[in-house]
Amino acid sequence: MATESLGVSRAAYREAVQTLIAKGLVESRPKAGTRVLPRDRWNLLDPDVLAWAFAREPDQRLIDSLFELRGIIEPASAALAAERRSREDLQQMKSGLALMRRHTLATEEGRQGDRQFHSALLHATRNDALIALSAGIAAAVAWTTVYKQRGRELPRDPLPFHVDVYDAIAEGDVERAREAMRVLVTGALEDIERAPEA
Amino acid sequence: MATESLGVSRAAYREAVQTLIAKGLVESRPKAGTRVLPRDRWNLLDPDVLAWAFAREPDQRLIDSLFELRGIIEPASAALAAERRSREDLQQMKSGLALMRRHTLATEEGRQGDRQFHSALLHATRNDALIALSAGIAAAVAWTTVYKQRGRELPRDPLPFHVDVYDAIAEGDVERAREAMRVLVTGALEDIERAPEA
Repeated sequence: MATESLGVSRAAYREAVQTLIAKGLVESRPKAGTRVLPRDRWNLLDPDVLAWAFAREPDQRLIDSLFELRGIIEPASAALAAERRSREDLQQMKSGLALMRRHTLATEEGRQGDRQFHSALLHATRNDALIALSAGIAAAVAWTTVYKQRGRELPRDPLPFHVDVYDAIAEGDVERAREAMRVLVTGALEDIERAPEA
Repeated sequence: MATESLGVSRAAYREAVQTLIAKGLVESRPKAGTRVLPRDRWNLLDPDVLAWAFAREPDQRLIDSLFELRGIIEPASAALAAERRSREDLQQMKSGLALMRRHTLATEEGRQGDRQFHSALLHATRNDALIALSAGIAAAVAWTTVYKQRGRELPRDPLPFHVDVYDAIAEGDVERAREAMRVLVTGALEDIERAPEA
């Protein structure tokens, strides 16, 4: 047992290991002990796991993977949201936009608004499986934005792209919502790729 | 503590609760105790959570959500797989098809082949975030198939639809792969909807 050298109680150690097991990062077998699993077994869309992955400079491959996933999930979700959104969904998205406008993405409050916008949009799909992805997608939005912001100016204002998505969903225009979100995600990826090395 | 009435050790109880916390099903606060969270906080794409949700007859809304998610993720993944697949990916998919052909989806071996096919396809995308979804998608495939099979004959043979997807990916035909997978997922959903009530 490593608890003495780590200076934590046996109970705290067991709880931590159990959390890592549940999130697919390690595996524990009788007698064989605890070992770290290969990354394709990790639950990479768990917000905690993403936070740990981005605690150090994440590799380019992970950033690309998350943007590619957003490019698949978010335009399709915007289309569903345009069909199914309630008044409350629209209010949640709108107050997210207001936070972004007031504080900008250079601040934690503004990024909180960004997460709220994307998360409310996924909730508006009324699809429990997509909603289950919303915490992971929101974390991916946040962490790719933080990564993008490190030590440089944003190449362009992301707000108008978000407003386009909002307007299409509010008007119930399915295909415009899909296309506006496709433009938003593609633009965010281009911003990263065009940005000079930090 | 409920451990005495449940007849389990305190350590086993704590481990179980920690697993449920890590998977988003319950929350534990000092003094307030442990409470079950609303379903939109559950990690519904975790294979364990899906298995628990399908242990009883699942509601139609969850089935519909999973098919809608498959309809978003799998055609896009088939398109990426057609660009990026390795020889090993194709072999994995092919041996999944062989199991389906030999055993049919009426058996556990055949369904194992089905899961292997869909999981190998997601791995062939080379996208870590999509790969992280593969366990959940494979479980969704399996559980919706089990549900579909309960007490009735399959309306049609699913194998040719899988072979079409495989052929398009093997030939590197991106748009045909996307379309073949769209047909496969749509067909599977129609089979459920056309099936008479059990």
